[in-house]
Parts: sequence; C-alpha cells; structure tokens
Amino acid sequence: MQETLKQPNEIPHNEKLLSLKYEGFKCVEISRWVICGLIGFLTGLIACFIDIVVEIVAAYKYKIVKRYIDQFVVEGGLCASVILWAILNSAFVMAGSLVVAIFEPIAAGSGIPQIKCYLNGVKIPRVVRLKTLVVKVFGVICSVVGGLAVGKEGPMIHSGAVVAAGVSQGRSTSLKKDLKIFEYFRRDTEKRDFVSAGAAAGVSAAFGAPVGGVLFSLEEGASFWNQMLTWRIFFASMISTFTLNFFRSIYNGNPGELANPGLINFGQFESGAYKLYEIPIFICMGAVGGVLGAGFNALNYWLTIFRIRYIHRSYLQVIEAILAAAATATVSYILMYCSDDCQTPGEHQAVEYPLQVTQSHNKLIIIEDLRLYCIHSKNTLLLVHQLFCPDGQHNSIATVFFNTPERSVRNLFHNFPGSYNSLTLFLFTFTYFFLACWTYGLTVSAGVFIPSLLLGAAWGRLIGNLLTNSGVSIFADPGKYALMGAAAQLGGIVRMTLSLTVIMVEATGNVTYGLPIMLVLMTSKIVGDYFAEGLYDIHIKLQSVPFLGWEAPATSHSFTAREVMSSPVMCFNRTEKVGTIVDVLSNTSAKHNGFPIVSDFTTNEVYLFYSTQVIKFFLHVFVERAQLKQRKLLLKDFRDAYPRFPPIQSIHVSQDERECTMDLTEFMNPTPYTVPQETSLPRVFKLFRALGLRHLVVVDNENRVVGLVTRKDLARYHLGKHGLEELQLAQT
Amino acid sequence: MQETLKQPNEIPHNEKLLSLKYEGFKCVEISRWVICGLIGFLTGLIACFIDIVVEIVAAYKYKIVKRYIDQFVVEGGLCASVILWAILNSAFVMAGSLVVAIFEPIAAGSGIPQIKCYLNGVKIPRVVRLKTLVVKVFGVICSVVGGLAVGKEGPMIHSGAVVAAGVSQGRSTSLKKDLKIFEYFRRDTEKRDFVSAGAAAGVSAAFGAPVGGVLFSLEEGASFWNQMLTWRIFFASMISTFTLNFFRSIYNGNPGELANPGLINFGQFESGAYKLYEIPIFICMGAVGGVLGAGFNALNYWLTIFRIRYIHRSYLQVIEAILAAAATATVSYILMYCSDDCQTPGEHQAVEYPLQVTQSHNKLIIIEDLRLYCIHSKNTLLLVHQLFCPDGQHNSIATVFFNTPERSVRNLFHNFPGSYNSLTLFLFTFTYFFLACWTYGLTVSAGVFIPSLLLGAAWGRLIGNLLTNSGVSIFADPGKYALMGAAAQLGGIVRMTLSLTVIMVEATGNVTYGLPIMLVLMTSKIVGDYFAEGLYDIHIKLQSVPFLGWEAPATSHSFTAREVMSSPVMCFNRTEKVGTIVDVLSNTSAKHNGFPIVSDFTTNEVYLFYSTQVIKFFLHVFVERAQLKQRKLLLKDFRDAYPRFPPIQSIHVSQDERECTMDLTEFMNPTPYTVPQETSLPRVFKLFRALGLRHLVVVDNENRVVGLVTRKDLARYHLGKHGLEELQLAQT
Repeated sequence: MQETLKQPNEIPHNEKLLSLKYEGFKCVEISRWVICGLIGFLTGLIACFIDIVVEIVAAYKYKIVKRYIDQFVVEGGLCASVILWAILNSAFVMAGSLVVAIFEPIAAGSGIPQIKCYLNGVKIPRVVRLKTLVVKVFGVICSVVGGLAVGKEGPMIHSGAVVAAGVSQGRSTSLKKDLKIFEYFRRDTEKRDFVSAGAAAGVSAAFGAPVGGVLFSLEEGASFWNQMLTWRIFFASMISTFTLNFFRSIYNGNPGELANPGLINFGQFESGAYKLYEIPIFICMGAVGGVLGAGFNALNYWLTIFRIRYIHRSYLQVIEAILAAAATATVSYILMYCSDDCQTPGEHQAVEYPLQVTQSHNKLIIIEDLRLYCIHSKNTLLLVHQLFCPDGQHNSIATVFFNTPERSVRNLFHNFPGSYNSLTLFLFTFTYFFLACWTYGLTVSAGVFIPSLLLGAAWGRLIGNLLTNSGVSIFADPGKYALMGAAAQLGGIVRMTLSLTVIMVEATGNVTYGLPIMLVLMTSKIVGDYFAEGLYDIHIKLQSVPFLGWEAPATSHSFTAREVMSSPVMCFNRTEKVGTIVDVLSNTSAKHNGFPIVSDFTTNEVYLFYSTQVIKFFLHVFVERAQLKQRKLLLKDFRDAYPRFPPIQSIHVSQDERECTMDLTEFMNPTPYTVPQETSLPRVFKLFRALGLRHLVVVDNENRVVGLVTRKDLARYHLGKHGLEELQLAQT
Repeated sequence: MQETLKQPNEIPHNEKLLSLKYEGFKCVEISRWVICGLIGFLTGLIACFIDIVVEIVAAYKYKIVKRYIDQFVVEGGLCASVILWAILNSAFVMAGSLVVAIFEPIAAGSGIPQIKCYLNGVKIPRVVRLKTLVVKVFGVICSVVGGLAVGKEGPMIHSGAVVAAGVSQGRSTSLKKDLKIFEYFRRDTEKRDFVSAGAAAGVSAAFGAPVGGVLFSLEEGASFWNQMLTWRIFFASMISTFTLNFFRSIYNGNPGELANPGLINFGQFESGAYKLYEIPIFICMGAVGGVLGAGFNALNYWLTIFRIRYIHRSYLQVIEAILAAAATATVSYILMYCSDDCQTPGEHQAVEYPLQVTQSHNKLIIIEDLRLYCIHSKNTLLLVHQLFCPDGQHNSIATVFFNTPERSVRNLFHNFPGSYNSLTLFLFTFTYFFLACWTYGLTVSAGVFIPSLLLGAAWGRLIGNLLTNSGVSIFADPGKYALMGAAAQLGGIVRMTLSLTVIMVEATGNVTYGLPIMLVLMTSKIVGDYFAEGLYDIHIKLQSVPFLGWEAPATSHSFTAREVMSSPVMCFNRTEKVGTIVDVLSNTSAKHNGFPIVSDFTTNEVYLFYSTQVIKFFLHVFVERAQLKQRKLLLKDFRDAYPRFPPIQSIHVSQDERECTMDLTEFMNPTPYTVPQETSLPRVFKLFRALGLRHLVVVDNENRVVGLVTRKDLARYHLGKHGLEELQLAQT
C-alpha cells in the first residue's frame, strides 16, 4: 500500500513554495502593486468615512446639547442639561461597547498592540477579520461621538491592517466569500508583508504621514530590509493619504483642494519660530513628558490587572464603559460651568460670525445654529464656544472639552497667546490625565494617540503660559510649547522613536521643528523607560504572547542555543509509519509546527517538515478522497486551506492505515537553517530576527539533531529586575 | 618552543570582539550618539562653508563678467567678453581638476558610487580619508564656480561619509594623528554604521531632507534593520540640516531664521495645486524622463569607456576638464546672445530694484552693482538679468545660464507663467543635455543631481508651456510641470526610488506633491531600466567591484552553494605549523581573508579564522617583540592596526620559526555560519545580505568543509542579456 501514499510530484515542498520560478515573476510583482494600491485606497476611504460620520454626528450632538444649555442658562435647570449630556454620551458609548463586547472583543482598544504582535510574527486569532473591522469602525465612531477621551487614529492602523489582510487574500472568512484571486499570496510571509503595508496606510491616513507610516511598519515588522517591499508600503501609504484628502476635499465642496492629508491636522506652524536657547526648555519638557507618561502607564497597568481579575464579564465591561462616559461628561460639564475663564478674542484675530469659512455646506448648516465663534489664528481655523460666558466672549475650557478631540488639539496649538489662563490648563490636565488613563483599556474601540497629544498640549501650553508670564518677552508663543508638550506626552506613553518623530514632523508640516521634536521624543523615551515600559508593551506583555524584541537581552551573551532549545525533540525518518506521525502530531505537548527529519541511512542529513502540510495531506488521503473523485493534491489545495489548516484530531485514521509507511521527502525543507549547540543566544536571536525564522534546528558537532528553537523559546527570556527572567507564555 | 607561541588569553577571538559585555554597554552607546551628533554638526558646517564660498566667489565672478559684457554692449567687442568668461571659468576648473588629478583621483565625480560600494561592504582604498575630503571640497567649489554643469549636492554625501569615518575612528591617516579616542569603534561593522550616518547627514544637508537621508542610507547600506542605528542616523541627519540652517541664518544676518534647511531649496509650492486629471500627464513625463535618462546614461557609458581607454593620464584629464569648461562658457554665451527671448516682468510680480531683499549684507553689496532684477514669485525670490535686453526687460535664458545652478532650478520652478518661450527652453534642454553628459565623469569633484534637476525642469517647463499655449486654461502653472520634469529626469538618471521620492518631497516641502512625484519616479525608473542601467550602477560596474544587489538574480534559483563556492579551500588544523600558515597566507591566489579550521580529532567541527589577526600576531611575535620589551598582545594592538593590517610578505620568518607549531584556537570564530552544499543561491544571497556576512563555509552532509563562499563569489553572477553571466572582478 505504500505506493498509494506516495506523494504526487505536484505537491511542492517548502523550497518550491518559496520560489517564484513557476509563477511568472512579473505578474506576481504587478499583483502586489495592485493590491497595495487597493489597500491604500480602501484604507483612505474608511478613514474618510469615519471622519465624516464623526463630524456629522458629533455636530448634531453638540447642537442638541448646546441648545439645552443655552435654554438652561436663561431659564435655569442646569442639572437637567448635565444629565442630558451624560445620557447622550453614555448611549453612544453603550452602543459601541455592546457591539465590541458581544461581537468581537478583539476590536477593543486601539489595536496597535495586536498589530505589533502580528507584524512581529505572533499569530493572534481573528485580529484581521472583516468582522473585526466592521465592529472597530462602528465602535470608534460611537466612542468618539460619545465624548470619551479617545482618538480615532490608533484604530485606523488596525483598520488598514484588516483591509490589507482581506484584499491580499482575495477572500473573507466573515463573509464566507472567496473571490479566487491572489491565491499566490495565501501564506504567512506574503500576508504579513501586506498587513504591514495596511498598517502603514492606516498611519498615513490618520496623521497625513506617509513616510511616518512606512517607518512605523519597518519599526514594528521589518527584520530584513526589503527594498521593493518598502517601496510598495510607501505606495500604499501615499495612495491612502491621497484618497482621504481627495474625498474629503469633495465633501468639503472644493474637489482637488488637497489641504488635509490626515485625520488629524496640526495646523500651520511658523517656520523655525524657536530659538536655540529654547531647546533646553524643550528637553526638560521631554523629561516631564517621560515622567507623566510613565505614571500614566503604571496607573493603566494596575487598572488593567484589576480589569483582568474582576471585570471579565461582558455586561460588567459595558457598564464600566457607560460609567466612564457619564463621568467624562459630568466632569467636563462641571469644569466648564465652574470655569470663569472667559476670553475676548484679541484684535489681531479675525472673528467671523456666522461662519462662512468652513467651506463645507453640510457643516455650515449645523454650525450656523451653534453660535460659535470662529477664530483665524495664523491661517488655522479654530472653533470656540460662548457657553456660560457673556456675549462677545467665549468659554476657554470649552474649546478643549466641547469639541472633537482633534479640534481641541488644534485649539491648544494655535489659539492666540493668553487665550487660556493657567488654572484652566492645570485643571484640564489634571482631570484629563485620569479620564484618559481610565478610558484606555475599556471595552470600546479607541486610540490613545489623541488623548496623549491633548494632555501634552495642555500642560505644554501651561508651561508656555508660565514662561510668557515670567515677563521675558522672548517666549511669546505658547503654541509651540503646546506642540512640544504634546510630543513629550505621546512619546512618554507610547515610546515609539523614529516613526513617531517623522509622524509628528509630517503632521506639523514643517521640517525645521524636526530637531526639537526629535530631542523631546528621545528625552521622554529615556526618562520614561527608566520608570516603566511603554503602554503598548505593557499590554502586549499582559497578553503573554511570544513577542521578540529588537535585540537579545543584554545579559544573554552567556546563554547558548543548548540552553534555550526545546529538547528532546521528536525526529522523523524520511519514511515513517502513518501511526507514528499521527501520534506525534496529536501529542499536544509538542506545540510547534515544524519537525526535523533525519535520514534513515546517514544521521547527518537534517531536514524539516511542517505538520500543517502533512495534516492537510492526511485529510486529503483519508477523508476527502472518499468524497471527491480521486485526483492529485495540488498546490491550490494548500492555499485554499490557508491559514486554517485542520487539527490532526479531526482526522480519523484506522488501524490498517496506521500501519502504512509514508515518504515524507516531498513535504520537507531540504536545507533548513541549523546552528551548532554552542551558538550564543544573541546570535540565535539575530538569525530569527534577520531571516524571520520560526524554527531553527540545533545540531551537535556530528550534525545530529539535538533540539529545536522556536520563537517561544526565545521570547521566554527577557531582562527583568533580577537579570534574565523566564516568562509564562500563553498558547497561540 | 610551542609554549612561547601559545596565545595569551587577552587576545579575543572574534566572538569576544563582537560582544559588548566587557566594555560597558551604556558608555559605548552614549559615545555612538555623541559621534553621530558630531558627524551631523561637522557635515552641516562643511555644507555651509561650501555654500557660502560658492556664493561669494560666484557673485564676484558674475560681477566681473557682467561689467565687461555691459561695457561691450555699449562699446562693441563681444568676442573679448566671451573669451574673458571662458578663460575665467577654465581657470577655476583647471585649479579644481589639477588638485583632483594630482592629489586624490578618488575625489573625482560625485562620490556616490564609491559610497554605495563602501556601504555595500566593498572596500575601496582611500575613499574616506581626510585628504580626499579636502580635495573634494576644494574641487567642488572650483567646478561650481567654474560654471560647469554640476552641482554641489552629490559631493556632500561623500563629504559626510569622510567626516563620519574620521570622527568615529578618532584619528586621521592623512594627518598621521591619533586622538586615542573611540578606539572601540575601530572595526568594519562599526565604521560602516557611522559612514552610513555620515552619508545620511550629507543628503540631509544637501537637500534639507533628513528623512530622505536616512532612507538613502538604508537603501544603500542596510541589510538587517537595526532600530537604534536608524535612530542614530536620523539624529545625525537632523543635526546636519539644523547646523547648516543655523549658520546660514547667521551669515544672512537673521540668526534663528531657519528657512533654508538644505543647499538646494525648491521654494514654496502651493498646496495640492494639481488636479486628478493631470496625473496621467505627469506619468507620461515620467516615461519621457526615463527615456532621456537612459539616453544620458548610455551616452555617458560610452564616454566613460572612451575615457578609460584614451584619457588615463593626469594631464589629459585636466585638459579635458578645461575644454569642457571653455565649451560650457562659450555655448551658454552664444545662446544668451542669440536669444531674443526678452521678458518684461508681469504686473503681478513685485519687482524690486535695487535689491534690499536678499537680507545678506555681503550678497547685497555685490548684487547692487549687478543691475539684476529681483522677482518675487509666490514668496520665492528669483534673480534675473538684463544682459543684452532693453532696459526694463531681462534675458530669459540668462536666468538659467547666468546663475548658480540652484538658483536656475528655482527660477524654472517659480518664475511666472510665460517667462520663458518654448524655443529658449528647447535650446537649453538640448545643449545642456550634452554638456551635463560630457561633464559627468570629468576629473573634477561634481555631482549630477542638480544638472539632472535643471535639465528636467527645463523640458518639464517646456511641456508646461505647450500645455498652457494649447489654450486650455486649466494648465495654468508651468512651474509644477518643471518640478515633475525635474523629478522624472533625476529618476531616469540615478534610478533611486524610495529615498529619492522622500528627498524630493522634503525639498518641495509639501506632502501633497508626494503622490505625483512618486508616480513620476516609478515610471521613470521602470522605463529607464528597460533601456539602460542607472548612472551610478554603470560606474560601479565599470569599476568591477564585487557589489551585491538587493536580490539574487531572478534566474539563479537553479544554482546551489556548491556551484558558486571557491573550492578546494585550504583548511587548517587547530594546531598548525607556522610555516604552513605563512605559505598559505602568502599564496596570492587565495584572495580571501577567512580560512576554515577543522578540528584535528573530529572532522565535524568547523571554525573560521581571519588572516589579518594571525598576521598581526606574527608581526608581534617575530618582529615587534625584538624591539619592544616582551609584553602580551592586547585587543588594543588589533584596534591600533585597523584598518591597515600588514601584508604577510612584510614578515620574515626564519626556518627555525617555520617549524614551530601554533594553536589557532584563540583566533578562531567558534561558531561560523555554515550551509549545506545543496543550499540554493538565493538563500545564500539572503544570508549574506541579511547578516552582512563576508565568508560562509559550505559543508557536506557529514559537516565536512567542502568550500567557502565569499562576496566575490556571489557578485560574480549577475543577470545579463544571455541569462546568468559571470563578471570579471577587480582586486579589492
């Protein structure tokens, strides 16, 4: 019976899978470009959709609330208006939270930790499904409109990644639809490349920062620098920001007026309006940002631990989200009401009322009712509110609370000097710090970028105010301090380096601010790292996934492959009994997918095979062939199965069949990477990172297999407070 | 005698050299940052120096020439003025060319091919010496002032690289000065990392494009993506552009007015002033740029072959350079004289005369004599000349010929619509194409970036003119066509992709032009690659260096390590006779530096040792110990010797000493990378690129050494017209 189990030649071994020679190199390359273009286009469209929906719904919400407030200011009954606002906000947040909790819990949060893991090579279930995307988009609209301390920028990155996974695979598991296109790309490496393009497109659409997007992807995902891939990622990013810009220009009634490349726009800063002696001040602000960021992260860490222990049921999670929404609304209302910071626009501002200036007819209609002021400050349009203030003045704290968060950030950056008093800014910073910290980790789709920026802009502006009030006229503009504060706070919380600098510079639109932004981000990272890890890293670690850092832990030089490898490892012969194979693969203690094969005759040849392929083959031989008419197993079958190969337990093998022998030659990788057992851990680490390995066979001097190193074996070791520590890793 | 030759334990084997554990990780890391800051600062200073000297000298030159021309316009005798100009230009070029030809021929050209090779891992002698830098700086000033069709941007990249090499090594071979600092960095990998930072700083200073600089370095040098390294490179770039900007602002009399981040400044483009339907036109322009670029490269290729054959003596090279200078001057003079394209500034331009606007008191003095017009077009300051035109008008072609090339580019980008007639532009394009092509490869220091931009801007503006004249008013601004033409022409000649896009976008200062620039560059590369290689690649190939491309040639999948390896390879035992070692190392047919060691007892252990270290040891034992008092050989000795280890021939070993045996254990790398001989060529290639290898040991199934793959073995194969071709490589 052995010959019937002999593999047909069409089934490729791994090496053939990797090679392009049978597929037409050019055609594949063109498909890749087309896919990247599509990814960029769709990501831009989604960003545009979220943006416009949030604009419209938020404007209606503010209109309703404002009308009641105005009415209550005249008639009394403030209590009712605060309850109205709290209920309205809670309703939105409840809707978003319910959808997330019930349909797709993985869509909670910003999704950046998940995408970081995915790009790092860790498989997280359901993270790039279409369903996740739909829930995410709906959720983020609800939480932003619900007035939580959140942004819609982080979720864009996740959205881009989902779009990329869907488009590149040409099918959707959620829709159970297979378009039968792009089947060549149905494997891990290709899919991951496209997902990194999607993440870049997301960053690009969120911040109008195509280069920042590329660098984000490289920072998180790249190991080997692949020029063509980087170039494609850049293409996707460019298309994404262009699409967003273009469609928004149509929405705003000026098609082709490409002035808003990202969801958040920092407005125009004057070129190089800082002096050399201000740079030390900026650096100190970076340190402040690092400390505040570390505090934020530590607080959020304890909160997350608390949540994992006590708030793990859906209904509790939804209730917490509703509470947070109600609290945010109440606190901001109280602050606005108690604030006596009423500002009269200065003479140098053009104040226009009613507003013809926003250029969007939709928005115009809404805004006309709102009795807003519109201030032109340095070519940037700012919206401010009268609220409880006398006519002709506007409520200063309402410019940050009673606005979408993006507008609030812009207000803090560009409002004229003196438009906030220091107490207002301090109160805002204090309350918003705790609100934002509470909010991150709620079961809602929401990002932490914008809250961080807003927080930093507030205390940055506070420092700017203090400097201005110090009587030294050289610190004229608190706006640039707001910008530096925003960079410092964001850097202190997320701890990204290169990509964040470029993102901030691109969002600022002025390369001369590059150096101070860079110095601020460096300082905040160094200071922050001294106290606590970055927010995303904390959340990744709490999920216990085998995440590989950039470099091997510093003290790992004394470790060798022998000490980290999984051993003993089950080796197969080239021809092996089916029963043996099934038993080994069924054994759940072997959690890896690759198994070494050693030759029957000489012990010195080492190969590697992947259980998923063998299982698919078994499925074909023992199950499907009974149903289908007998045909050979083709490459296509493997691709159709990807990425969900069946578990071995789903295949019943009879006692007769167990006795068959089978030739594993066709499944194996004939030249797997091997290292001697004396290889140091840093070198093993470098091989994994540089070559994107998942398995590395460890051999002794006679080239005999002595063990196998997997990602998990490496991720287990990390540098803790007591030297090298071993982590408990979750099953993935 | 064996015990005297036993290695002292302090001599580290390679693995120890790579490890940081003995050096204090933090301290080394801080030094790296300091060095990168210094690199950026010095590179910026050099850029500033070149810029200011060129400004001053060129202004004086134009002043003298102009005065004669004005005089001759009145009095007659034009012939004398053209001769004056030609002689003046030739004199400058002769000075530059003489210095290059006599003192340092490697300083000729832009230096970018050399830096590409260096970053790729190819060692080119004298390319990063201080002497080269001095010659380069002097040379580039002479050739720009001499009116050749050259730019000073390419040489900045080379200059940055030299600065980096010098600073990071803490010593200079040219000055015979060793500061005894940064000795830790005296080895190939560290030095290369710093050189890539220097190259990035150079790009950054040249174009005001810090991110573009980082991407240039990554594109040319990176293999494994190293986050900290990239971050440091970015730091150097930022410091570099900031330094240039800052010192120039002081020179211009407005300290702190950071408005000119690069040597070339494209001026301000309106945000998104293009429409969707113009993008196909831009793409067509990209194709034109590709064709013209390929033509340029092919012509230059033949010219270079001709030069290699017939113009290899210094005096011939200098004469050629002088001829080129004279020809350039004459041709441009004739064009200016014959041109009847006299323009009256339109009403919408603010014309100021005399000029108070340039803000530089130095420049102001010069310019007041010159009877220039100064046109404000879209916030960009343009200088135009009256020359042979009636009063109140200016000579159109003189705006591009009678100016520094950077100003000419800006004129073409920003001068008001209709300020050039199409014939002028055509004539300029036609003549400048041949002049620039002739100029690249002359024995002068000069870059090809600016001539390419100028050429492209001219025909781009020509296309813009034609479209405007077509009567369709939508193509109002020929300036953006000039920009796209410049991108297309530059892309068609140098064929860089990602980094060039980012450089162009940063120089334009407007992210909304990113998408069209990217599409143009992609098109020009695809079209250009169809006809001829990139200019730098052509010159690299003509130098026959073992340059490794990004990926293995497409048809190389059928090759295995066995076919490309050097075989048989000389193997050593762990203890070996000194005589045997000396004989093998003296054998010039073994051109590599690494030799496998196999154990005496088991054949299955493979190690690798480097001849340079052994030779240094011999030198110590057999030569130096006679002179010095007996002391142990320390790590420091190896560092002091780097990078010029003595040749084995310089060591005389007596017959007695030949009989000694020596233990190679301490010199060897105990875990070299090995591959089975069946490994495919693309995989070997990937290992080399990803891990930055120089030697890879090839073993058979019993782990016996069968061969050695070096860079040269890989670079030998490239994809030619007849499939895979083997190259003849030079000795390096």
